[in-house]
Amino acid sequence: MTRKPLTAALVLSMGLSATAAANEGMWMPTQLPELAKTLKAAGFEGDPSALADVTTPPLNAVVRIGGGTGSFVSGDGLLLTNHHVAYGVIQYNSGKGHDYINEGFIAGGRDDERPANPDYRVLVTVGFDKVTDEVLREARGKSGRAYYDAVENARKRIVADCEAEGGVRCSVANMYYGSDFYRVRQLELTDIRLVYAPPRAIGNYGDEIDNFMWPRHTGDFTLLRAYVGKDGKPAPYSKDNVPYHPPAHLTMSLDGPKEGDYAMLAGYPGITYRLRTAAEFANQIDAVLPRRVEVFQQLIDVVEAAGKDDADARTRYASQLQSLKNNRKRAAGELEGLLRSDAKARRAADERAMLAATDAKYKADIDALFASLDAERAAGERELLVGLMSSQTQLLRSALLLERLRVESAKPDAERESGYQQRDQALIEGVLRQVQRRYDPAVEKAILTALLTRYQQLPDDQRDSHYDNLFGRTPEQLHKALDELYATTKLGDEAQRLSRFEAARKGAFIDNDPLVSVAAALVMAQLSAERESKERAGEQLRLRPSYMQALFAWRAQQGRAVYPDANGTLRISYGKVEALHPRDAVNYSPVTTVAGIVEKNTGTVPFDAPKPLLDAIAKGDFGSTADPALKTQTVNFLTNLDTTGGNSGSPVLNARGELIGLNFDSNWESVSASWWFDPRYKRAVHVDMRYLRWLLAKVYPAPALLAEMGLPRE
Amino acid sequence: MTRKPLTAALVLSMGLSATAAANEGMWMPTQLPELAKTLKAAGFEGDPSALADVTTPPLNAVVRIGGGTGSFVSGDGLLLTNHHVAYGVIQYNSGKGHDYINEGFIAGGRDDERPANPDYRVLVTVGFDKVTDEVLREARGKSGRAYYDAVENARKRIVADCEAEGGVRCSVANMYYGSDFYRVRQLELTDIRLVYAPPRAIGNYGDEIDNFMWPRHTGDFTLLRAYVGKDGKPAPYSKDNVPYHPPAHLTMSLDGPKEGDYAMLAGYPGITYRLRTAAEFANQIDAVLPRRVEVFQQLIDVVEAAGKDDADARTRYASQLQSLKNNRKRAAGELEGLLRSDAKARRAADERAMLAATDAKYKADIDALFASLDAERAAGERELLVGLMSSQTQLLRSALLLERLRVESAKPDAERESGYQQRDQALIEGVLRQVQRRYDPAVEKAILTALLTRYQQLPDDQRDSHYDNLFGRTPEQLHKALDELYATTKLGDEAQRLSRFEAARKGAFIDNDPLVSVAAALVMAQLSAERESKERAGEQLRLRPSYMQALFAWRAQQGRAVYPDANGTLRISYGKVEALHPRDAVNYSPVTTVAGIVEKNTGTVPFDAPKPLLDAIAKGDFGSTADPALKTQTVNFLTNLDTTGGNSGSPVLNARGELIGLNFDSNWESVSASWWFDPRYKRAVHVDMRYLRWLLAKVYPAPALLAEMGLPRE
Repeated sequence: MTRKPLTAALVLSMGLSATAAANEGMWMPTQLPELAKTLKAAGFEGDPSALADVTTPPLNAVVRIGGGTGSFVSGDGLLLTNHHVAYGVIQYNSGKGHDYINEGFIAGGRDDERPANPDYRVLVTVGFDKVTDEVLREARGKSGRAYYDAVENARKRIVADCEAEGGVRCSVANMYYGSDFYRVRQLELTDIRLVYAPPRAIGNYGDEIDNFMWPRHTGDFTLLRAYVGKDGKPAPYSKDNVPYHPPAHLTMSLDGPKEGDYAMLAGYPGITYRLRTAAEFANQIDAVLPRRVEVFQQLIDVVEAAGKDDADARTRYASQLQSLKNNRKRAAGELEGLLRSDAKARRAADERAMLAATDAKYKADIDALFASLDAERAAGERELLVGLMSSQTQLLRSALLLERLRVESAKPDAERESGYQQRDQALIEGVLRQVQRRYDPAVEKAILTALLTRYQQLPDDQRDSHYDNLFGRTPEQLHKALDELYATTKLGDEAQRLSRFEAARKGAFIDNDPLVSVAAALVMAQLSAERESKERAGEQLRLRPSYMQALFAWRAQQGRAVYPDANGTLRISYGKVEALHPRDAVNYSPVTTVAGIVEKNTGTVPFDAPKPLLDAIAKGDFGSTADPALKTQTVNFLTNLDTTGGNSGSPVLNARGELIGLNFDSNWESVSASWWFDPRYKRAVHVDMRYLRWLLAKVYPAPALLAEMGLPRE
Repeated sequence: MTRKPLTAALVLSMGLSATAAANEGMWMPTQLPELAKTLKAAGFEGDPSALADVTTPPLNAVVRIGGGTGSFVSGDGLLLTNHHVAYGVIQYNSGKGHDYINEGFIAGGRDDERPANPDYRVLVTVGFDKVTDEVLREARGKSGRAYYDAVENARKRIVADCEAEGGVRCSVANMYYGSDFYRVRQLELTDIRLVYAPPRAIGNYGDEIDNFMWPRHTGDFTLLRAYVGKDGKPAPYSKDNVPYHPPAHLTMSLDGPKEGDYAMLAGYPGITYRLRTAAEFANQIDAVLPRRVEVFQQLIDVVEAAGKDDADARTRYASQLQSLKNNRKRAAGELEGLLRSDAKARRAADERAMLAATDAKYKADIDALFASLDAERAAGERELLVGLMSSQTQLLRSALLLERLRVESAKPDAERESGYQQRDQALIEGVLRQVQRRYDPAVEKAILTALLTRYQQLPDDQRDSHYDNLFGRTPEQLHKALDELYATTKLGDEAQRLSRFEAARKGAFIDNDPLVSVAAALVMAQLSAERESKERAGEQLRLRPSYMQALFAWRAQQGRAVYPDANGTLRISYGKVEALHPRDAVNYSPVTTVAGIVEKNTGTVPFDAPKPLLDAIAKGDFGSTADPALKTQTVNFLTNLDTTGGNSGSPVLNARGELIGLNFDSNWESVSASWWFDPRYKRAVHVDMRYLRWLLAKVYPAPALLAEMGLPRE
């Protein structure tokens, strides 16, 4: 019950090594055979070697979908993912008279399944091969920018060769920060259809209020179906297409999870930073996060003050304000978590021990890496400010986009910076068109004043002379420059922006405008910063592998395996169903029930459970989906599995490899887990598949789908 | 784990009868011998009959103090109560250079113990005798106001006779709503001194944020000492006084509480409504509480709107706004709790069953009681509005006080309405003097506009013609009347109010003022409403005993004892240390530890634990006060004991009658317990005496006090 601040002594008394818990790890499937013993010890009843190959069952049932994860759950291409991952598909199909978001959707047979938005994709991994030598061959012996370019060119060449055969999408994944590279081949399914979605008040019950919270009561799932051409090959939507027959699909368990049960999860986690250096941890905790909290708070204050007496400005900036607040909250939560876990001191102690044990041959590289990271760290505030000047403004962003588009458009399309190629131009045009609804000159000037005032206070070696020249060094000069700029620019006029867009995309000269002139200077500064940044990136790509080698050796001494930081490739995590004890005397059960839906229900968004659900709960007819011990219907459950963004929609499997849950969220205490895994607090939140089965059986019936998945009808 | 809405069937399945749980009951000590079996079954190891007499040990160690409860904890008159019960004493002794509120206070020996404010009292109950016949003798055969007056006159006579002997304070307590009356004789100790108070950030750690919350981490205790004259008799403060030697004192246990342990508590609970009729329950749930929520919200909106662009008004009304919000929150919480417990339907079913089983001889009285309650119910909204017109205004309240004071001052002091006697005049003067800091004419007019607009919409038989004449029947008339009134009244001037106060207290004519004229008419309406109300009160006093007899008979059939609703007399509750499961998947442990202090600490009020406390926690030197199972220092604990306001400071005893805790709060889910005891949610929050002992031993040491209480020094 007691929860003392975690100290090294306490950690050791818990029987854990200093940085890893039994359930920590986003393992590459290829690593699982080496973990066979611990997998079995944890309770897995299957053959660990069967999990090693992403191109064979069961892992080839797990797909990448809409920024998250999904899995096939029938031989006819039925796909399970989160309601929030498929939200765009539901929205795309909603319209006047058919509000599938609020009312949900059940296809009245296969003919009634609705095509997703045309850019919606499902990627099935069909190849995963190590190509380290090929990637690094040209780079060896080089350094800095040359090293960077050699690696990038090799990656581009491998992707081009791989995609040449057609029908697949390829990429090269960087594992362990430049130590290893893998070629990932993925089948790209392009005809995806909406089959079953619960109403918003089930699929997103609790919305932002319950987001990151436990206990949860959300049915965050949707069923889709993948279609292919009659030849079985991926094809764009056509009514003649037929259901895709995946090489494997998952089977839903008829039993549910209970505390202590083994659980595992497969998915495509996006990004983590756990193998970063102690200095990077310290910088994140001491500088990056506090700075983000401070700057976002400053912008929140500016926007709120500007909106105080101006209802119109308040409306235009409502969404931006919400996003600033989310950013601030998230940074504060991450900071709080890292402090609570004492991550800085613990990572530092771990690195010190590693360096003491390191083979001398790595030392020079590691020292050089540390020096490069120091230089990068110094640029942290400038990079944050410059990024915000573009992302938090409307007119200045437009000018920067136009000018950079002009610069890039002078090059062949393939050589242009990503974001400015032919395929990106619709997005740029969209940004230029939506300015009117989100722009107020007084607010934009106030935001820039806050950001540029901070910029003016940067040390000399961090300020670019373009900024000094444009905005001066004093508050008065800044004030005057911004006033003149916004009084004279014509970019507030949509027609003016669009005519300049037409010129810029051809690489042609853009009609003169004061803000475009400013942007031209700022793009010069941007290009110069990018050159520096790529130089550093090349050095780090070259040097980090030595740090990794030292780490591998140190972990080997500790008897521990190392998993690569998340990078959007398929990973597996294993652990168990586990309660959460977040604070003194507060204990959360790992399984929630429908009673909680009734308790939370206020009748207004987001706690407005639909009447059919409330009626069914009151009726209490839970049939075979009721929990035998709890004697009621469960809704969500918690595991200690290792997840991050991108794991949304990941299937959760039991000891026999059967589907028991659908991952959809983490608890608030896990926000900092992208840097540091703390087994006391890290939990993942899942939909209990028995809740899905009950909804399909008794509340919004879809008997044909239950039959297709081989499940009982009640 | 599941928590379905409570239905009658579920209640029965829990093995409880429809309205009582094992731990429900604020028993009169005289009832304990009849409960001996259940007390023993619950785990009490002492002799139940020893608890029957409030004038013998251990109950005569439990005293009434400053609106709450206290207990003697040494033979030298050392008294234990809550920090918040003794707050006025600490405040009275604080001043420039000695901030005992924030820094705490430890007397440097008996000479250094500081006298309380002169009106602070400790009452030791020395007599408790049934006087029903004497009280009702003259009333029998009468009805309405005559019955009321006969009872009141008998009570006044009994009190006067009782106090004639001197040195005691007497009162007549009404049990079971006019069924029984008891004469309570209390020794009045008037020299009370401050001995030991922890700093505010311990005694009130968490303040309003944690109020009503669990888990708690508050050291809400203070030690005082009672002194008497050298002759052993109560006497006002004198440096020659000597410590009082109480006839009994409690002994602190060296063991602490753990889940499931027997616990009991003695104290002076203020008021409950559990024996009210089903119609009164329905009215509370359907009308009184929703109306309070609505009207308080309306006033909150009015005050917030008025303060929106007026920082000065915002400051003047900050405290009133906070109080309105607390009132609204409290009413909403009570309503929520009563709905959650389905109290209306359950009380109605219980009463229906009772009436079906009732002896015919009670039926006429019960019908007449129901009719009288109907009439009272109709006046509910008017009474709320009239009350708020006085309590939520400054100038109108001043005028009403002045005019009523004038009316009452024409009578002999003893016959004046309570609140307007000689002894009340300092309070009235205080109210008249503090107007300036809390008054803004625009806000007061807005408040009155809201209240009087509701008044205008009351049905004809509820509106008093004085109001119609003064404020009209339309928004325009109301607006005009208020504008004129506040433009011309001189009561905004303090000197004007005070000169009229001097006249009013002599019963003399008050210099003319428009608002005083209005008040004169409103006081006429008030007096007429009071006449009606006393007429009804007399009838209910006459009739309720028949309802009680029917209830006693029904409870006897059910095999259950009945305890009287709380009325400020000494009561006993027994139950056990019990965890709380307030919502689906949320489980609170019943004991908190010092780890929670560290977790909650932000360094700013109210989570700003003092450094010596944080250092001592970090040091972890808990000695003999550590919990043997948790291996750390505990702070607070939960029991399922039956408490309400007035139980603050109640001693919590273990099975052997030893002191283990100090009651100081309830959980939020208990707010509705004044009407309905729901064993699922009703908990009381206590300071663990081991926390007190640790603070006195290791953090803010007071070894002499530990020795005086017979406790180990570490």
